[in-house]
Amino acid sequence: MAAQIQYAGLDAALDAWQAALGADAVISDPETLTARSRATFATANTTHAILRPANTRQVQRCVEIARHFQIPVYPVSTGRNWGYGSMALPGLGGVVLLLDRMDRILDYDEELGTVTVEPGVTQRQLQEFLAANGDRYWLDVTGSSPHCSVLGNSIERGFGHTPYADHFAHMSGLQVVTGDGTLLDTGFGRFENARAASAYKWGVGPYLDGLFSQSGLGVVTAARLWLMPKPEAFTYFQVSIRDDGELEPLIDALRELRMAGHIRSAVHVANPFKVYSAMESYPWEQMNGETPLDPDIVRAHLDRLGIGAWSFSGGLYGSRDQIRVAKKAIRRRLRASLDVCQMRFISAERLAMLERFKGPLGRLTRLPLDQMLAFMRALFGIKQGVPTDAMLPSTYWRKRAPAPPDPDPDRDGCGLFWCAPVAPLKGADARAMVAIANEVFARHGFEPMLSMTVISERALDNVIALHYDRDIPGEDARAMACYEELLERLMDAGYYPYRLGIQSMEALRARSGAAWNHTLGRIRQALDPDGILAPGRYPP
Amino acid sequence: MAAQIQYAGLDAALDAWQAALGADAVISDPETLTARSRATFATANTTHAILRPANTRQVQRCVEIARHFQIPVYPVSTGRNWGYGSMALPGLGGVVLLLDRMDRILDYDEELGTVTVEPGVTQRQLQEFLAANGDRYWLDVTGSSPHCSVLGNSIERGFGHTPYADHFAHMSGLQVVTGDGTLLDTGFGRFENARAASAYKWGVGPYLDGLFSQSGLGVVTAARLWLMPKPEAFTYFQVSIRDDGELEPLIDALRELRMAGHIRSAVHVANPFKVYSAMESYPWEQMNGETPLDPDIVRAHLDRLGIGAWSFSGGLYGSRDQIRVAKKAIRRRLRASLDVCQMRFISAERLAMLERFKGPLGRLTRLPLDQMLAFMRALFGIKQGVPTDAMLPSTYWRKRAPAPPDPDPDRDGCGLFWCAPVAPLKGADARAMVAIANEVFARHGFEPMLSMTVISERALDNVIALHYDRDIPGEDARAMACYEELLERLMDAGYYPYRLGIQSMEALRARSGAAWNHTLGRIRQALDPDGILAPGRYPP
Repeated sequence: MAAQIQYAGLDAALDAWQAALGADAVISDPETLTARSRATFATANTTHAILRPANTRQVQRCVEIARHFQIPVYPVSTGRNWGYGSMALPGLGGVVLLLDRMDRILDYDEELGTVTVEPGVTQRQLQEFLAANGDRYWLDVTGSSPHCSVLGNSIERGFGHTPYADHFAHMSGLQVVTGDGTLLDTGFGRFENARAASAYKWGVGPYLDGLFSQSGLGVVTAARLWLMPKPEAFTYFQVSIRDDGELEPLIDALRELRMAGHIRSAVHVANPFKVYSAMESYPWEQMNGETPLDPDIVRAHLDRLGIGAWSFSGGLYGSRDQIRVAKKAIRRRLRASLDVCQMRFISAERLAMLERFKGPLGRLTRLPLDQMLAFMRALFGIKQGVPTDAMLPSTYWRKRAPAPPDPDPDRDGCGLFWCAPVAPLKGADARAMVAIANEVFARHGFEPMLSMTVISERALDNVIALHYDRDIPGEDARAMACYEELLERLMDAGYYPYRLGIQSMEALRARSGAAWNHTLGRIRQALDPDGILAPGRYPP
Repeated sequence: MAAQIQYAGLDAALDAWQAALGADAVISDPETLTARSRATFATANTTHAILRPANTRQVQRCVEIARHFQIPVYPVSTGRNWGYGSMALPGLGGVVLLLDRMDRILDYDEELGTVTVEPGVTQRQLQEFLAANGDRYWLDVTGSSPHCSVLGNSIERGFGHTPYADHFAHMSGLQVVTGDGTLLDTGFGRFENARAASAYKWGVGPYLDGLFSQSGLGVVTAARLWLMPKPEAFTYFQVSIRDDGELEPLIDALRELRMAGHIRSAVHVANPFKVYSAMESYPWEQMNGETPLDPDIVRAHLDRLGIGAWSFSGGLYGSRDQIRVAKKAIRRRLRASLDVCQMRFISAERLAMLERFKGPLGRLTRLPLDQMLAFMRALFGIKQGVPTDAMLPSTYWRKRAPAPPDPDPDRDGCGLFWCAPVAPLKGADARAMVAIANEVFARHGFEPMLSMTVISERALDNVIALHYDRDIPGEDARAMACYEELLERLMDAGYYPYRLGIQSMEALRARSGAAWNHTLGRIRQALDPDGILAPGRYPP
C-alpha cells in the first residue's frame, strides 16, 4: 500500500481549521481516521483529518485554509458511498470535508413541489418532512440506507425507482464553493430576486451545474430539487419470464413500453442470483461452506417459487384510469412475445389483502409468504419514495454471520464493488453485458448479481454487485482483480460506467482521450488554481 | 452607431481563410455583409466577413487563423435567429462562422430514435428525413421557419410543442471546437467505442454540454438528439375562457394537469392580441392607418368567433386509450373552476371531416372556416413535428403590405423583438408578468402579443413579441426603448429571460453578480485564452 503524503503545514492547518470550526468539528485522532478510511474494498488509509463545517461560510473558510497550506480537501456529504469507496480518499493524502452537519431543508414550495436541501439532509429526513408537510410529494429514493444524503446521490447522478429516477435531471440549480473560494449560485439562482430559480433548470447563459456533478470542481453546499407529485394511485408490478434466451425480446419489449409511455418509471431486471440473494442469505450449509454459489441451488429454489430466468419489477403512477390503461397495454405487449411465468400487479389494497390472508394462503401454496411479503413491502415502499433498511443486509451476503441490527458494511468487513455500465436499451447490448459479467465472475469465483435498470426510454444501466468477505485473507485482492477485469472488459466492449469508485479514477483518465483531459484540466485549473479540491476525483 | 473595429491583420486573415476554405466560402463584399448584418431591429453593421466551412476540420482551421490574427469569430448555424439579432454581431467587429454548409444527418438509430446532426441541418430536412426513413419518430419543431437550424435552436435552448418541447433536455452529447482549437466530444462520446453515446445524456465525470449552450465557449459542430416516438394517436386541443380575471385559476389548473400527467406537452396560452394577429392582418382601414391597435376591434372580432380572454392550445400524444383518459380528466378539471367558452379536441379524423364539410358548415355558422382551418392545419402539423411557413408572415404584422411569397423579415424591415421571461408556473406570477407587459406596451404604443408557454410541470415562459415597422423613421428607437424598459421591469420583478438577443448581453452581465462573472470569466479564459470566440455573447 502506497505511503501517505506528509504535509509540512498540516499542524498549522489543523490549528486554523479548529479556530474556524471549533475543536469538536476537526477530527484527527488516528483511530477514527482509520475507521473512516475503511470502505467495502481495500483502500489506503490516507486521511489526515475530517472537518465538519456547520455552514457555507465555514466551508469557504475550510477551502481558504486548505489553499493557504496547500492541503487537498475532499468534500463528502454523509460518507455512505458504499461500493464506490465510502469516504476514503482517491489520493494519497488530504482531509475530508464531511458535510453531514449541514442538514437543513430550505425553501419548500408546496405548489411547485420543489425543495432546497443541504448536503447533510438524508433520505429519511426529507421523506418524513414531506409526509409531515401536506403529503403532496414523494421523494425518489435509492435502495441504499435511509441515512444516505439526498444531495450527494443527486450530484453523483444516482438513480432510483419512480418517474423521477434520474436524480440529476430533477435538480434546478446549485450553491457551490469553488476551489478559489468563490461562492457561486447557478441557474437563475445567480440573480438574487429570481422567481423561477427552483422552477427552471437551465437559467440563462451557459448551464454550469454539470461541472459540479461527478467532479471535484466545487463543494456543493445546497441544491434545489424537484419532487414527484404524489399520484392518485400506485401499482407495483413484478414479472418473471421462463427462458434465459428471451432476455433480448424482453429488453426490446421494455423499450417499446417506455417509448409508448405505458411505463414511465425505472424498471429493474434481475438475474437469478440477484433474486435469490434478495430473499435468502448465502446457503452455507447446503454449500458445505464453499463459494461460489452453485447455480443449481438457486434454480431449484426459484423453481419452487415459480420464478424464471429473468425477473423485473417497477411501478405504475397516476390516476386509476391511467394505471388501468397501462396495465392492459403492458399485459398485452409482454404476453405477445414472451413466455411469462409470473405477472403480478399489486395495488395497496391488494397488498393489504395478501397481508391479511397470508396464513391460509401460505399453507395453501406452500410458499414462504412471510418472507416474500416482507420483501415486497420494502420494494413497494421504495417505489413510493419511502427509504428502507431492508436492502443493506444484502451487503453481508458473503459473511458467515447475518447482518447485525445496526449494519455498517465498512466496519464489518463486507466486501462490495459496484460496477454499473450503461448500454443502449437494446436486447443485444443487454446480452453482451451479461455474457461478459457471467464469464468474468465465474472465472474469479464470485456470483454476478445483476440488476439491469431501464433508466430511460433509451438507456439500460447494468448495476453489477460483486460481494465478498473482506475478512478472508487474500479475498480483497481476488475481488479487486475480478472487478478490474470486469470493468476493463466492459469498457473494451463499449460499455462505460455511469459512475465510478475511487479505485477506478485512473482507469477513466487513461481512456478519456487527450481532448477531454486537456479541456477538463484547463477548467479545473481555472476554478481551482492551487489544485486543492478533490484531486484525483474524476480526473483530471 | 458605434464604429466598427479595424483589425490590422484582416487582409492577411482573409487570404488565409480563403486558402483554407476556398474563395467561394469567404464572403467579404460590403453589400452582402451589410445585408447579412441586418436584423429585425437596429444593429451595428460590424461584420468583416462571413466564413462558410464545409466540415469540422475547416472549422478548426478557421479558429486557428482567427487566433493567429486575433480576430473574433461568431459561430452561427443558419443565421435565422430572428427577434434575437439574426446573424448580426453583439460586438463591434469580427467574422461570422456560418455553418449552413455542414448539413449532414449522421447516425440515425431507428430503434432508439436518436440522430446526430450538423448545424446546417434544417427543421424541414430532418422532418422529411424521418418521414422517409420509417416514419417512426417525430421532430419537435418551433413555429419559426422550416429553414431554421435544428442544432442551433437546441443549443440556444429553444422549445417547441410536443412532450419533447425542451430541446436542450433532449440532447445527448456534442462535438465542439473550443477557442484553443481543441476538438472535443462530450458525454460518452469522448470514448471512441462507446455504445451508449446517443442513448445516455450525462456520460461519466463532469457533464460539460451545458458550457456550450447559450455561450461563446465553443463551436458546436455536431449534436446527438433524441426524437419523439410517433404515438399511436394524436389529438389537438384548443380551449378558451371567457374572463380575463380567470387567468390565475387557469394557470393553476394547467399546472395540476401537467403534474398529474394528463397533459405531457407544452401548452401555449395566448392573449387576445396574439389570437387576433394569428388570424388577421393589421386592420389598417378600420384603424385609419393608426397604431396601436384598438382592443375593442380585437374584442369584437373574437366575440364573433366565440373566443374569450385567454385561449390555449396543446396536443395529446399516446395510445387511443391514453388520450381518452386524458381528455376526460382535462374536461373535468377545466370545467370545475373555469368559465370555459370553447373547448375543442380535434383528432386527424375530425379535422378531415371539418375540411370536407367546411362549405355548408361555414354558411351555417357564418364563421370564416377557410381561414380558421388553414391556421388549425398549421398548428396541427407543428404539434406533430411538421414545420410550417404559416407563422412567418406574422412578422409582417405592422407592415402596410402583406408578406411576400418569400418572406424575409431581415430584408423587408419587419421589426421584431422577442422577450421571453420565465416564471414559476403559478397564476399569480403569470398575472404579474402580464400586468407589466400590458402597462409598458400601452405606454409605448405597441400591442403586447403574449404567448405564455407551459414548458414543464413547473415553469411558464411568457414569450412576448414586439412587432413594429422598421421603415417608419424613429420607430427603431421607439421599439428599442419599449423593449429595454420591458426587460428591465420584468427583471426587477424577478422574471428573467430564458434566452437573450444580442442587444441585451450587457444588461445580463450587469445583473449576473460578481461570483458568476468571475467564474464564467475564468472558464472562458481557460477554453479560449485569446478571447476570440464570440466575445460579448452571453458574457463574460
